[in-house]
Amino acid sequence: MENYNFLLVIALILLSTKTFGLLSSHVHMPQVVGALLAGIILGPSCLGWVEETDFLVKASEIGVIMLMFMAGLDTDLSELKKTGLASFIIAVIGVIVPLIGGTAVYFLFFAETMDFQTILHGLFVGVVLTATSVSITVETLREMGKLSGKVGTAIVGAAVIDDILGIIVLSFMSSFSDPAASPAKAGLQILAFFIFLAVVGLVIHYVFQKMEEVVGQKRRIAIYALAFALLLSYAAETFFGVADLTGAYFAGLILCNIANLRQYIGKKVNVASYMMFSPLFFASVGIKTDLSGLTMEYIWFALALLAVAILSKIIGCGLGAKICGFTSRDCLRIGAGMVSRGEVALIVAQKGLSAGLIAATEIPAVVLVVIATTLITPLLLSIVMKDSPAELAAEQKQTA
Amino acid sequence: MENYNFLLVIALILLSTKTFGLLSSHVHMPQVVGALLAGIILGPSCLGWVEETDFLVKASEIGVIMLMFMAGLDTDLSELKKTGLASFIIAVIGVIVPLIGGTAVYFLFFAETMDFQTILHGLFVGVVLTATSVSITVETLREMGKLSGKVGTAIVGAAVIDDILGIIVLSFMSSFSDPAASPAKAGLQILAFFIFLAVVGLVIHYVFQKMEEVVGQKRRIAIYALAFALLLSYAAETFFGVADLTGAYFAGLILCNIANLRQYIGKKVNVASYMMFSPLFFASVGIKTDLSGLTMEYIWFALALLAVAILSKIIGCGLGAKICGFTSRDCLRIGAGMVSRGEVALIVAQKGLSAGLIAATEIPAVVLVVIATTLITPLLLSIVMKDSPAELAAEQKQTA
Repeated sequence: MENYNFLLVIALILLSTKTFGLLSSHVHMPQVVGALLAGIILGPSCLGWVEETDFLVKASEIGVIMLMFMAGLDTDLSELKKTGLASFIIAVIGVIVPLIGGTAVYFLFFAETMDFQTILHGLFVGVVLTATSVSITVETLREMGKLSGKVGTAIVGAAVIDDILGIIVLSFMSSFSDPAASPAKAGLQILAFFIFLAVVGLVIHYVFQKMEEVVGQKRRIAIYALAFALLLSYAAETFFGVADLTGAYFAGLILCNIANLRQYIGKKVNVASYMMFSPLFFASVGIKTDLSGLTMEYIWFALALLAVAILSKIIGCGLGAKICGFTSRDCLRIGAGMVSRGEVALIVAQKGLSAGLIAATEIPAVVLVVIATTLITPLLLSIVMKDSPAELAAEQKQTA
Repeated sequence: MENYNFLLVIALILLSTKTFGLLSSHVHMPQVVGALLAGIILGPSCLGWVEETDFLVKASEIGVIMLMFMAGLDTDLSELKKTGLASFIIAVIGVIVPLIGGTAVYFLFFAETMDFQTILHGLFVGVVLTATSVSITVETLREMGKLSGKVGTAIVGAAVIDDILGIIVLSFMSSFSDPAASPAKAGLQILAFFIFLAVVGLVIHYVFQKMEEVVGQKRRIAIYALAFALLLSYAAETFFGVADLTGAYFAGLILCNIANLRQYIGKKVNVASYMMFSPLFFASVGIKTDLSGLTMEYIWFALALLAVAILSKIIGCGLGAKICGFTSRDCLRIGAGMVSRGEVALIVAQKGLSAGLIAATEIPAVVLVVIATTLITPLLLSIVMKDSPAELAAEQKQTA
């Protein structure tokens, strides 16, 4: 007989993420916090009612792609052109500081000798801390209506560049243990990805513009656009070694300046996302791990790593933003928006595990960092994103 | 490394089902025909690009549940009360005639002796032909805007009753080979399901009515409603041995007379359905099978079974409708709407296979019946559902 448990699991996730989301918005926190808590409560760390399944992994991957695709669609291109260099500088410094910080924490706890393997191992712990997971931030900023502003665009842009930088660093590190991967190869792949994007982008942009002129706003356009986002995500991962969510973001970017389409596609994808896929994604972050296996030493290590993970992104990205002339308040906002680490950190850790660059006992610490930063980011953002009295006055002056 | 092929598969399915759907609507056929053809072309019978995966099975199950839930939401209760007895009579005769017809075809081809096992085997082939799959019909009628009319309601009502009758017959047959299943037990389970439905229905109907009064049309209501449909589908399968789609249909029925909610929920579920789940379902019907393993004898058997499958439903259900006083034209429409056999027939066949009541070599014939009836039903409906000149005149008179 077939097993219909997945129906129960999905229903539980939909009910709990929405209910906890409503509760958290009741106490003036973003709904994402509640949705993530719902996942932790349903998962093995608490009730143990729901475990990770192949279906859940795939559905939440689709959820991530939809969120990133919508983030791309929402991007204000003229704003990104203005913040492009800033995003780049923010991303670079925001990768270097956590890399150094994570390595330092590892040395502090576990380095008895300073041989090559230990240094490599320590550096890899640093690498795990580099990759920002922007999807939580994107959802939080979307809820606040701050996604397309100057700060929002800088964050999303920096996170996309950060993702690519993370992959370069990962490939570079892996090249020491795996003869197949090399820094040169990784660099070429990323270059090839951007050439591919430029060509595909021009063609697809033209096709959708023509479609919009001929048929207008019809379901087919939203369905084809979603298929395009899925294809670009697939191509990014499979042919260029770039994260699928980067592909999804660029798919949105390619379509974001076809005025009427952008809103129509975004609306349809958004419904499919909030009715099913994004609840599954947010819950699966909580379900992904079992926190019961931690020992005291690793709990301290995990807490230290967590503190460094948070501070290093705020300091690194904030510093980058400061160099680019953002106000101190906006520097704090950008730093806070880059704190969250998500599935990318987990994937990097998993790759390190299979390459022998990270120990199995260190994985729960990585998981704690991922969950805690993911929980903290919306909280931080909800605090720092509030308009200051001066900003409110300036806005009122503008609209007056 | 993770495998991202499922993204490519989903993109291919979305692109091809929509494109073939548009092509078929271009030649005045329902889009469902195109979507099903797309699945057959992608599947092992033709290109072999896509195979059945756990993800696809589960996503298409959700697609079926969404379609049936929307069918329930769309039900005109006052119309169903009027057609309730008619639906019952249509369903009963529409089960008896294919049961006899399928048994006869088996005897014609394979019965050399008339021992108990052969009779049982033949009867089981008949049982496979009894279960109508209403989801294709529902989607076709929805496209035509004929779902909530007198004929549409009679078809959906009869198909739901037919599903329950099919389960009774299946349980009855299985009781001969499996000591655990018994006709009495099956009867009690179905009775229990309806008592459960009555209690749950009253509570949930009250809860949603209150929610609508307090918060109005908010996302949470659509999400909770979908979760309820999933829960009822799960409960039907797991606790009462009733098909999940029956549960989903009743979930819709329970909410269908809360005036403002019904449309709002339907709209949101519909977007999630057409953006992802129903394309995956329709494609998976085509993907489910490999037609290359058929021998000549079994091709003839399959064709005979197919002819009987089509004619027996049209005759049986049409006869039932005639008894209930429908016009000859409407009898033909109701018969045509009941022709399609879907996943239920496949599940029944699979259960028969494990109980030794059907041979593995007969399975491709069942699959052919499922696919061909599924393809033919929308075609038949698009032909017979057209308003006759007399009906058009009557309608014009009404609106004038």
